[in-house]
Amino acid sequence: MITHTEALVLYADTDQMGIVYHANYLRWFEQGRGELFRNAGYSYADYEKTGNVLPVVEARLRYHRPARYGDRLRIDTVVKEVRGASMLIEYRVTCDEILLASGSTRHGNTNTEGRPCPFPEAFRTILEEIISHQNAH
Amino acid sequence: MITHTEALVLYADTDQMGIVYHANYLRWFEQGRGELFRNAGYSYADYEKTGNVLPVVEARLRYHRPARYGDRLRIDTVVKEVRGASMLIEYRVTCDEILLASGSTRHGNTNTEGRPCPFPEAFRTILEEIISHQNAH
Amino acid sequence: MITHTEALVLYADTDQMGIVYHANYLRWFEQGRGELFRNAGYSYADYEKTGNVLPVVEARLRYHRPARYGDRLRIDTVVKEVRGASMLIEYRVTCDEILLASGSTRHGNTNTEGRPCPFPEAFRTILEEIISHQNAH
Amino acid sequence: MITHTEALVLYADTDQMGIVYHANYLRWFEQGRGELFRNAGYSYADYEKTGNVLPVVEARLRYHRPARYGDRLRIDTVVKEVRGASMLIEYRVTCDEILLASGSTRHGNTNTEGRPCPFPEAFRTILEEIISHQNAH
Repeated sequence: MITHTEALVLYADTDQMGIVYHANYLRWFEQGRGELFRNAGYSYADYEKTGNVLPVVEARLRYHRPARYGDRLRIDTVVKEVRGASMLIEYRVTCDEILLASGSTRHGNTNTEGRPCPFPEAFRTILEEIISHQNAH
Repeated sequence: MITHTEALVLYADTDQMGIVYHANYLRWFEQGRGELFRNAGYSYADYEKTGNVLPVVEARLRYHRPARYGDRLRIDTVVKEVRGASMLIEYRVTCDEILLASGSTRHGNTNTEGRPCPFPEAFRTILEEIISHQNAH
Repeated sequence: MITHTEALVLYADTDQMGIVYHANYLRWFEQGRGELFRNAGYSYADYEKTGNVLPVVEARLRYHRPARYGDRLRIDTVVKEVRGASMLIEYRVTCDEILLASGSTRHGNTNTEGRPCPFPEAFRTILEEIISHQNAH
Repeated sequence: MITHTEALVLYADTDQMGIVYHANYLRWFEQGRGELFRNAGYSYADYEKTGNVLPVVEARLRYHRPARYGDRLRIDTVVKEVRGASMLIEYRVTCDEILLASGSTRHGNTNTEGRPCPFPEAFRTILEEIISHQNAH
């Protein structure tokens, strides 16, 4: 069971090549990630109230086919790996089951002063639940 | 004497009409506004340290001619009006002396909880200096 | 009967004031506008295939209260006025029935070389149908 | 000799974490890339007139330290690798000589219908000149 969410390509997303500007997929990755946590009963807004943030430390994107104005995109998101204070999230953006882009973001956990610290226990539990759901049929 | 600053149109700014997406001019207005205060020896970052912020309460834009990829834009910015807790800034975006867009933003002063309050005295002084420079030849 | 559509505020939309950056509402206005035409059976993508585009010639925004990360926004959109080659669209962005932002965009019709021309007859008919729906109860 | 260009961090670039939103570095990568070709006497606008475009097929980003509002960024850009119809560009974004972000984009050459084709000969020559300049002292 994999979390998914949807997005509509706006004119704002396109560039003069007539396709979606490549940076905008990171926005949809973020949307997928937010949905992943929200589905597990955990809002990122609540997370920040604990005095922790999840800055992106690495991002990778592969562009398979262009998305275009009016396309209804589906974003599938999975937690791929969790370590002490770092997690890897993977994304696939499709339209009508055709893969348009894929990629990943790695996040560290820090306090609001930017110092790395381990994930709060409650959050780690959520991540484990998400992973076990992903593996379930 | 009017403050100006420059910007280069990137691919990121364009849309599939082959011109700059209309929302992006507000970014250049912001750049012009920042330069206006910086020129007067006042950085907006310092402003926030006083516990005040300047949210936009109104914006108006007129699009005269399209800006295109690679255009070198010039943004002219003036303080048009200052009242107790509100100011009006005006902008003109040109390329090779041709007017592309013009507009204004109105800003209120609030504390970080969002409550309106009068401009700090030091900032009001800066605004008056900017206005008197604008009127000078 | 007024067309509405929804949007979720992402981290990408916020700025360091902890609220949505003011330019981003123009994106939601565009989304509302696209939905308005789509609801009337008319996609903007089809419009462009006729060799016409609808550039924004003027935009106005009023910011009533800040939108924040995670807010589920509702965008209500109406056609306010249609003339020979120009139309005025109005927008209201709310969250839980509280008005956050309102505004309008004026659009001219041009061919792809940027020359103003009257709306295609089919599009004018759509606009009239939208207006008569708006007035119906 | 490495091409560099500069950018000022705007409020528009920040998010509610008080730092630059991670997607925005791709914009600065694009700016660096444009400068790289412009320095070699080649504008990307001219490139498009030949009926070729250079879509991004892969992007990688590493975030070392956060960029903040008002930072003056320096973007260093190099051509890392050129093959038949693909090139790899690398970027480093610094502020006061401190590395904030690094990464790369891979570009394929296609015609405007999106079909891959070899780089035009003139462009390949430019790329070779850039590489030989990079290696010169």
